[in-house]
Amino acid sequence: MRVVDLIRRKRDSGEHTREEIEHLVQGYTRGDIPDYQMAAWLMAVLLRGMTRAELAALTQTMLHSGQVLDFSDLPARKVDKHSTGGVGDKTSLVIAPVVAAGGLYVPMISGRGLGHSGGTLDKLESIPGFNVNLSLAEFRRVLAACGCGLIGQTAEIAPADKKIYALRDVTGTVESPNLICASIMSKKLAEGIDALVLDVKTGSGAFMKKEEDAVHLAELMVETGQQMGKRVVALITDMDQPLGRTAGNALEVQECIEVLEGGGPGDLVELCLELSAWMFYLGGRAAGVEEGKKLAAEMIASGRARDKFREIVRLQGGDEGVLEDASRLPRARHTADVPSPGEGYVGRMQCEQLGTACVVLGGGREKKEDTIDPAVGLVFHKKAGDAVKRGEALCTVHYNSEERWQRARPLVETAYRIGPEAPRDLPRLMQKVIGA
Amino acid sequence: MRVVDLIRRKRDSGEHTREEIEHLVQGYTRGDIPDYQMAAWLMAVLLRGMTRAELAALTQTMLHSGQVLDFSDLPARKVDKHSTGGVGDKTSLVIAPVVAAGGLYVPMISGRGLGHSGGTLDKLESIPGFNVNLSLAEFRRVLAACGCGLIGQTAEIAPADKKIYALRDVTGTVESPNLICASIMSKKLAEGIDALVLDVKTGSGAFMKKEEDAVHLAELMVETGQQMGKRVVALITDMDQPLGRTAGNALEVQECIEVLEGGGPGDLVELCLELSAWMFYLGGRAAGVEEGKKLAAEMIASGRARDKFREIVRLQGGDEGVLEDASRLPRARHTADVPSPGEGYVGRMQCEQLGTACVVLGGGREKKEDTIDPAVGLVFHKKAGDAVKRGEALCTVHYNSEERWQRARPLVETAYRIGPEAPRDLPRLMQKVIGA
Repeated sequence: MRVVDLIRRKRDSGEHTREEIEHLVQGYTRGDIPDYQMAAWLMAVLLRGMTRAELAALTQTMLHSGQVLDFSDLPARKVDKHSTGGVGDKTSLVIAPVVAAGGLYVPMISGRGLGHSGGTLDKLESIPGFNVNLSLAEFRRVLAACGCGLIGQTAEIAPADKKIYALRDVTGTVESPNLICASIMSKKLAEGIDALVLDVKTGSGAFMKKEEDAVHLAELMVETGQQMGKRVVALITDMDQPLGRTAGNALEVQECIEVLEGGGPGDLVELCLELSAWMFYLGGRAAGVEEGKKLAAEMIASGRARDKFREIVRLQGGDEGVLEDASRLPRARHTADVPSPGEGYVGRMQCEQLGTACVVLGGGREKKEDTIDPAVGLVFHKKAGDAVKRGEALCTVHYNSEERWQRARPLVETAYRIGPEAPRDLPRLMQKVIGA
Repeated sequence: MRVVDLIRRKRDSGEHTREEIEHLVQGYTRGDIPDYQMAAWLMAVLLRGMTRAELAALTQTMLHSGQVLDFSDLPARKVDKHSTGGVGDKTSLVIAPVVAAGGLYVPMISGRGLGHSGGTLDKLESIPGFNVNLSLAEFRRVLAACGCGLIGQTAEIAPADKKIYALRDVTGTVESPNLICASIMSKKLAEGIDALVLDVKTGSGAFMKKEEDAVHLAELMVETGQQMGKRVVALITDMDQPLGRTAGNALEVQECIEVLEGGGPGDLVELCLELSAWMFYLGGRAAGVEEGKKLAAEMIASGRARDKFREIVRLQGGDEGVLEDASRLPRARHTADVPSPGEGYVGRMQCEQLGTACVVLGGGREKKEDTIDPAVGLVFHKKAGDAVKRGEALCTVHYNSEERWQRARPLVETAYRIGPEAPRDLPRLMQKVIGA
């Protein structure tokens, strides 16, 4: 089997056998196939696509390139949630304790910020002492003890994905639904879960700007997961404006604590309840989604989710004092309000620009080797459809570097548009459910 | 200028600026851009195409990656011919001496066999002692002395092409008209020529099986050459069956000597005269193609072309005795006739299979590091449209290894089909002229 012939086959829109995909992925992971051949093949896959059978073979080969965790000895179902990422998308920090408090296990392997979108690991690390780099043995202990663990991808989990992802990042082959699906699902299925809820974002702050692209990716992931015997659904949800009222690592942790205490902005609460509800339903803890939503709300109202979050923070080495005293979280030295340039209504937002502004402030990485400033970010006072007066603050920027703030400023200012009328047809938060 | 952004632009069907193409090609040639990024970009170019402006920039950047020869001090026009390659395609060995004898300079930088097609350098090397690896200084001396030189691509000529070609070969990115055009034209324009005749093959033994693909490639090459101030035409010619009566290095040299002596098969003679005529016309030695054809025929009839060939062979270190005594060329130990399985007419031939059979016999390379057996090959007794009796020899195979012959045999046998009637609509040898 010559690699160049396999590249040519995909280039000419041919279909690979399972053996061919194993040959490519295993050979590349071992180092027998060079980067340049894999890069050409990945570009051909991006431009020519894959059949569902090829995608299943790719996902399985990547999954089995490393350890597949087995938590079958734990006495309840294992469920997880994955979001394709956006701005202010912080639901994991609420959902994990809610669902663990409700009696399911949540073995969550998360990622870092990518491009303009934030990452769960970066948010967690803004809690002083919180360790996301547990070994798999420690992860198991934390999971068994409190029903939840939150870590990053280790060397043992889907090493093929790790190597292919790094190559995609520098060869312009990130934006392929098939490759995105295989990457996400190979990692998630390695968690040893029974069920998975996917939160596929769409809109100006999402990777999939168009709803049809989000739906296509969702269908691929749901089908791939179901083929492998898992209960999987995907919710298509809005990312045309930031979720909740904050973007920025420590600011988002603080907002999540508010939600766990029964407060927080409506859209964030609604999405957390919806995603938790589906996890309860797929995990067999609720007969339906409505019942799941009630259970989730109860976990918050009773304080059990908040207690669970405290337990997780403690078990992973973090300062649980942040729950009582938000000032123990990193805080930026400076704040600046961004005033409305006129009177009227906030129109649709350039959501990706707000995410990029957060990165520029230091809340994300412009280059791989950058370190993150956990304190900086944005607090949104007005969102699409809100009435606003001239000079009223649209948002407040938290920053530590004047130079960074001046670079971020035009991104923030031009992300808003103020019009004489409230925009019609604002996207609904919950748009579709795929796979139910 | 981030390379990954340039890859993404081409992937999304965008157009590059000249500066972007220079950045990519120069960076890759210097070693600043890694193979894997170039491989992804080449695949995107193959699948998304290029504008004419991009192609011109690519060709020029590759051309100027090395030395551009300057023979402007030589007292006549410099012209060359390039063929896209096929089976039994040996015209260079006739044309170079014919055109040099007619008073033009032919600084010919040629290639080796590629896939199922033969290469001029391999053919020349079947002449004992013939040295195709002249330095550029030696090349200039030979050219000045006899009006013609025949060498391979040196390190000084279009090094970007050399490096990119090697990468294309292993990444499934050979078959792109734009990349083929830039590769051919960057090398040919480095020869310091005034005019170029392209022989673009089409049919079952060509790289471009379909006439429209051949015409498209021809148009790209003609336009690119003309934009750079050269006189360029392309002939679209038939490669649906082997050219002439032989395929195999020494056998083809012998056939070329026959043509230079006024003999040889009609199709080969016709094509050599046609290509030479265009070279005379573009080089200003003939007022039109018909006049050029007469001049070419005269060079053969007078023996001047044969004398010129003898001179070239001597100046490049070869045994000129092969002109009088063909037995001084390498000869295979065994021959075997392939008999016709029935009575009737030879139909259209699987020409590529015959070329591959020649490679399998040892006349070409199956792997890059293979050495060539100059003696082996095929002598065709019957071609498409010929009447044949049962048991009559279709061709004779010259071989040195029984094992290789047994591997080649089915390729040869199934390349012929015998039918009850002569096939209609056999392609004409000369099909179209592009650019005149």
